[in-house]
Amino acid sequence: MMSFYGLSAFPLTPADEQGRVDTDAFAMLLRRLVDAGVDSIGVLGSTGIYAYLSREERRRAVETAVNVTRGASPVVVGIGALRTDEAITLAKDAADAGANGVLLAPVSYTPLTDEEVFRHFAAVARATPLPLCIYHNPSTTRFIFSHDLIARLADEPGIVALKQPGGDAVSDDLSLLRSRLPPRFSIGFSGDWYAADALLAGADSWYSVAAGLFPHQARKLLQAAREGNAHEAARINAAFEPLWQLFRQQGSLRWMYAAAHHLGLIDSLPPLPLLPPSQQELPALVFALERLQAI
Amino acid sequence: MMSFYGLSAFPLTPADEQGRVDTDAFAMLLRRLVDAGVDSIGVLGSTGIYAYLSREERRRAVETAVNVTRGASPVVVGIGALRTDEAITLAKDAADAGANGVLLAPVSYTPLTDEEVFRHFAAVARATPLPLCIYHNPSTTRFIFSHDLIARLADEPGIVALKQPGGDAVSDDLSLLRSRLPPRFSIGFSGDWYAADALLAGADSWYSVAAGLFPHQARKLLQAAREGNAHEAARINAAFEPLWQLFRQQGSLRWMYAAAHHLGLIDSLPPLPLLPPSQQELPALVFALERLQAI
Repeated sequence: MMSFYGLSAFPLTPADEQGRVDTDAFAMLLRRLVDAGVDSIGVLGSTGIYAYLSREERRRAVETAVNVTRGASPVVVGIGALRTDEAITLAKDAADAGANGVLLAPVSYTPLTDEEVFRHFAAVARATPLPLCIYHNPSTTRFIFSHDLIARLADEPGIVALKQPGGDAVSDDLSLLRSRLPPRFSIGFSGDWYAADALLAGADSWYSVAAGLFPHQARKLLQAAREGNAHEAARINAAFEPLWQLFRQQGSLRWMYAAAHHLGLIDSLPPLPLLPPSQQELPALVFALERLQAI
Repeated sequence: MMSFYGLSAFPLTPADEQGRVDTDAFAMLLRRLVDAGVDSIGVLGSTGIYAYLSREERRRAVETAVNVTRGASPVVVGIGALRTDEAITLAKDAADAGANGVLLAPVSYTPLTDEEVFRHFAAVARATPLPLCIYHNPSTTRFIFSHDLIARLADEPGIVALKQPGGDAVSDDLSLLRSRLPPRFSIGFSGDWYAADALLAGADSWYSVAAGLFPHQARKLLQAAREGNAHEAARINAAFEPLWQLFRQQGSLRWMYAAAHHLGLIDSLPPLPLLPPSQQELPALVFALERLQAI
């Protein structure tokens, strides 16, 4: 259960043009997170390009994460797939590799009904010994979980956590969810620019893309919020704001690659057809990264 | 070029629970289409579950289609994939197997920009000797092609056709597209319930899900429209209307499986997590199929 509390950092998964994971570069990114003391590492999240990697490469990525962390940070693994049998296979691979939890998003081509998503999640949860977190990410999956569906899923054995997208009413969303879900069910949020509000409102966890590269700064935000220091949380959030602006405009994935390049950490590009930001867009990123030094 | 004119029928791809294509059942469905004299066969379309099948199974499906048709109907193949390199590989597989054209949809997980879609399509078109049709299907890919982007793509060598979703203003859409696109560029429509309007307005082709199981009835609709017989086209369309109603409500894929079952043609189910319609919903389907006998 400890896999789904506190700061969960989501690193990029560096890979070559054919989708082969660069395990050395990935290990380096992971080590930075362990050293910073994040509470868990979310490997193969959306910015960890799970959707673009083969089963074999996903297995290599999980093995790398388990080897690097050696229990210092729980490893939770994105196992989303179009087919139920595929998602079950990926859950088994994650357990075999020694991961601590799984994140399941309702990936689809033909849009799914609530009943289909329910049965998909229940089938995967039953097939794995690992605790499962509902990965609610409408910006990529285009599926919106109702509170009813989340409550129904929370009654299934093995489904113990929710990664909910942030929103302008994140505090209300959290209260409503708490009233519907079992007491020990973990409710966390993604959408980094909502994190300060979500954490101050008492969210159990922050599933953070930015923490994949900037774990120290993210931890400070988490800590300020945990201490109920709204002023300090707002100060840190303000320093993050130029980065949040970029994330809101174009999604976080392309910018995180550009940031990792700018910092000299990785050479890999996002998988084509995804393109990095253009040269003209880079000054905005450089400005955003400079602001992070104030944290 | 003949691959993208007239009635293009899109069959289901029967497969087992592990996603292994049942080539015997598929060949039987294909033979019905050849016997009915459809103008082309769209294998591995959205209802042909291309997104849910491995590269190997997609190759087996294309080989089956080429073997069954033996040139009697051009075979066009859905080659959509999340990665550009994957789509190129699938285009090569289709050409190697002897297909006559390819259909490319902008499948995504991270939503794509116009520039990303343009480069993806241009790269695939350059990598294959087969003529390429833009597969515009926002209900599954969630990507909307602007007329500007379509015009830009139509200037690329090898991109010769557009499968446009139908709509209430299908005739206006066709005129506007004609004014933007090269004279010999093929403009066809999907969304079966818009077909009568699209064909009467002069669309080059009808990309039809229903024709995958009901090719004779679909041909009659095409023929009436081609002859400018709006009255007869409306009569046939009215007989299809109960089926169109079901398609509009829940998408066509699940109903096409149920129809193929009801007709005793296949045993396969759609790939999980997709579920067939419930028992209570079947009478509406039976009614819709009975109405087709009036055509």
